[in-house]
Amino acid sequence: MAKPTAPRGLARQRVLDAALALFAAHGVHGTSLQMIADRIGVSKAAVYYQFRSKEDIALEVLRPSVEDMARVIRIADALPDVEARRAVIVSGLIEMTVRYRELAVFFHGDPAIDQLVHSEPEFDVVTTRIRELLEGSDCTVADRVALSVFLSGVCKAAADPGLADVDDGELHRILLELSGRILAPLATESAAAGASRSPSASRSG
Amino acid sequence: MAKPTAPRGLARQRVLDAALALFAAHGVHGTSLQMIADRIGVSKAAVYYQFRSKEDIALEVLRPSVEDMARVIRIADALPDVEARRAVIVSGLIEMTVRYRELAVFFHGDPAIDQLVHSEPEFDVVTTRIRELLEGSDCTVADRVALSVFLSGVCKAAADPGLADVDDGELHRILLELSGRILAPLATESAAAGASRSPSASRSG
Repeated sequence: MAKPTAPRGLARQRVLDAALALFAAHGVHGTSLQMIADRIGVSKAAVYYQFRSKEDIALEVLRPSVEDMARVIRIADALPDVEARRAVIVSGLIEMTVRYRELAVFFHGDPAIDQLVHSEPEFDVVTTRIRELLEGSDCTVADRVALSVFLSGVCKAAADPGLADVDDGELHRILLELSGRILAPLATESAAAGASRSPSASRSG
Repeated sequence: MAKPTAPRGLARQRVLDAALALFAAHGVHGTSLQMIADRIGVSKAAVYYQFRSKEDIALEVLRPSVEDMARVIRIADALPDVEARRAVIVSGLIEMTVRYRELAVFFHGDPAIDQLVHSEPEFDVVTTRIRELLEGSDCTVADRVALSVFLSGVCKAAADPGLADVDDGELHRILLELSGRILAPLATESAAAGASRSPSASRSG
């Protein structure tokens, strides 16, 4: 093929790196294509040569982390046990979040990103399956709240500028322990379960 | 005074209500003064008559919750014991977060809001003091990570659209229990403390 893939690949990566830094500082909404172009010293037209839109850039910035999670899902789905699958997803999310610390800040928090992820079928499949594996078939109100605290809390903490001095290994260890506590069954759960289920109903997960 | 405070107060509140709904859906960056004006069916000039800028509107939307937290801080500061002060702040933050559920979504997540809060001295004092009271004088790396998970996780969960069906009382109870778990000393903490402190150093909180 005559297409100059190597230089184009390099130019693409420069756009993605610049976009990531700007998204982290200003959010996706607060970043313009012009700001991205200015940061790497090229024209807006040069950026448009590589990407259709700012949303297109944001999706490409996220793509490696989503592809990693798709692999973790395949690993989890191969396991026969519900609890084991869930543990793989929890551990995989923490690993990914720590590895992509700069990404985490806008992946979990920016409403523009939520809309974007849902608009890309390939990404939506991954986030939906993560949720299914985490929720299992028997999810109480307390479980749902705990999952929400886990997803926002752990992912945002990884990206907290106040924790930038904490090294990846230590952060990973602490987040794993916190996640175990957050996702363990709650005392209030039995009360909530009693209110929403027949006491005699047997649970088959 | 001849100033027509009552109708102006009403018009102000309509702007604030419209702005809150738009901020929650699109973030502060993604919301324009024109969108706010359109939503309540007035001109942009009419909005400018009430507020200097979009940032001014965002600060006013946040003001009641910040004033509530200032009161909680006064209550906490009156207590002699460090742990008791901390418990009041944790409980106060959860109570405030549940009461202002729609606010929480953009208070914790939107980078524009962070910048805005720090730019308003009156607000900055409150957020700084909350952090001081939560951190105490002897804060390990694990404590700092746990605090970050608590602040993002609990506050974002309250605003999670997926939990909109959970009533305030139940949400409050579950978040309080989760916070207790998140903020309890970690097993990894002793290792971290050992690495950063002399083992013989006595802790005076």
